[in-house]
Amino acid sequence: MQGTQQPTPQPTAYPATDRTVPTRSADRASYDKEIVHAILDEACVCHLGFVRDGAPVVLPTLFGRVGERLYVHGSTGSRPLRMTGQADPGLPVCLTVTHVDALILARSGFHHSMNYRSVVVHGTAYDVTDPQEKFLALDALVDQVVAGRSKDSRPANKKELAATAVIRLDLDAVSAKIRTGGVNDEPEDLDLPHWAGVVPLRKGYETPVADPLLAPGTELPDYLRAL
Amino acid sequence: MQGTQQPTPQPTAYPATDRTVPTRSADRASYDKEIVHAILDEACVCHLGFVRDGAPVVLPTLFGRVGERLYVHGSTGSRPLRMTGQADPGLPVCLTVTHVDALILARSGFHHSMNYRSVVVHGTAYDVTDPQEKFLALDALVDQVVAGRSKDSRPANKKELAATAVIRLDLDAVSAKIRTGGVNDEPEDLDLPHWAGVVPLRKGYETPVADPLLAPGTELPDYLRAL
Repeated sequence: MQGTQQPTPQPTAYPATDRTVPTRSADRASYDKEIVHAILDEACVCHLGFVRDGAPVVLPTLFGRVGERLYVHGSTGSRPLRMTGQADPGLPVCLTVTHVDALILARSGFHHSMNYRSVVVHGTAYDVTDPQEKFLALDALVDQVVAGRSKDSRPANKKELAATAVIRLDLDAVSAKIRTGGVNDEPEDLDLPHWAGVVPLRKGYETPVADPLLAPGTELPDYLRAL
Repeated sequence: MQGTQQPTPQPTAYPATDRTVPTRSADRASYDKEIVHAILDEACVCHLGFVRDGAPVVLPTLFGRVGERLYVHGSTGSRPLRMTGQADPGLPVCLTVTHVDALILARSGFHHSMNYRSVVVHGTAYDVTDPQEKFLALDALVDQVVAGRSKDSRPANKKELAATAVIRLDLDAVSAKIRTGGVNDEPEDLDLPHWAGVVPLRKGYETPVADPLLAPGTELPDYLRAL
C-alpha cells in the first residue's frame, strides 16, 4: 500500500453472453475466471476450431496461457496459422479444452453420461509478430506441458523462431462447463437389476523415461519428480 | 465359400484427399480403416466442430461408431442438433478424437511435443429420423462408453426417444495422425545439461464406485471387472 491510487478492481468472471451461455444444462456453466484458468492450466492440448472454405476444421494442438491470453503455435506452413497474418483481420476460432473425469453408468441408457470439465473460448486469433511476445508465448507453451520446463531447456534460436508461427487469442467470450457427482436415474428405475455407478478415469503421469542419449550425469529434475 | 459370387472387396483405407492430407507432418498421417477405427473406439468423447453465424464452435460430446458411420446425440434443443433436420441439406461438421499418450520433453523448447493418436472426420451430419436407426445409434453411444453396456441397461422409452436428437456422419473424408517414439533433438543439442525424455500419461480406469441406491444383490458385472 505504497501509493494513494487504488488499483482498478478486475472482474472475477467473464461476461455471460448469447455466445457463451449453453443452450442445454446451463446450470453446469461457470464464468468464474479462477475456475476457467484451472481447467485450462490442467491441459496442454486443446481442440482448435476454425472455418476453411465454409466448413469447420477441428485440430488438436498444444497451447499456452499467459494471464488472459492464450497462445497456439505451429509451423508457419500449417493451415490455421497460414490463415492469420498482419494484413488479415484475424481468424475466428473456437478453442476447447476438455477433461473427462469419470464415466457415469446409469440404469437407463438415456442417463449415461460423463463427469467432465470443459472450457470453450470463442474469439479472433491474431498473428503474433512482436519478437518479445513470441518468445513469451513459446515459453508459455513449454511451461504448459510441464510447469517450470522453459527454464530448463534451450530457448528458440532465430531459425526456429522464423519457422514457428504463433497466434494469440484473448480470454473474453469464455465459459466453463462442469459435471460432477453420480448417477441421476429416474425414481422408477432404481429397482432395475442393472449395476449403476461411477467409473473414475485414471489421471496422472507414469515414470519418466530418459532419452538414451542423455548427457552423462543428467539427473531427473525436481519438477518432473513432483509430477 | 458357399456361393459362386465373390463379395466385392471393400477398400481397407480412406481416400487421401486435399481435405484429409495434413499440410504438416504428412508422414504421421494414416488412412488405414483399422487404425482409424481403433483410435475412435478407444474414445467415447469427441470434439465436434460446426459453424454458427460464420464462426466456428467446438463442443465435447459423446459419440458412437457403427461400422462406417458415427452417431452423436444430444437434446433436441442443443445447438448443432437443432441445426440439422429433414428439410435441411445437412450440417457441415468436423469430428475429432485425440488420445494424448505421452509428453515429449526435448532439450530445446522447439522440439517439445506429445505422443498422440488423433482422427479427424470431415463431413455432413444428417438428422436420424428412422426409429430403428435411432435405437441402433443410442445403443452404439452407450456401448462406446463401455462395450456391452447397452444390453445391461434400460433402453430408451418413447418420451426419451422424442427428447433425443441423433445425427449421423459417414466415415469418408477421414484421416488419422499418430506420433510415437522419443525425443528428436538437434545433434548439436545432445550434450546440453537438460534432462530429456518421455513422460507417459497414465491411462485406464479406477475402481468403479457403485451408486448408493443400487438394488440389493446387484453385483459388479464382468464387463466392468475387466476394464
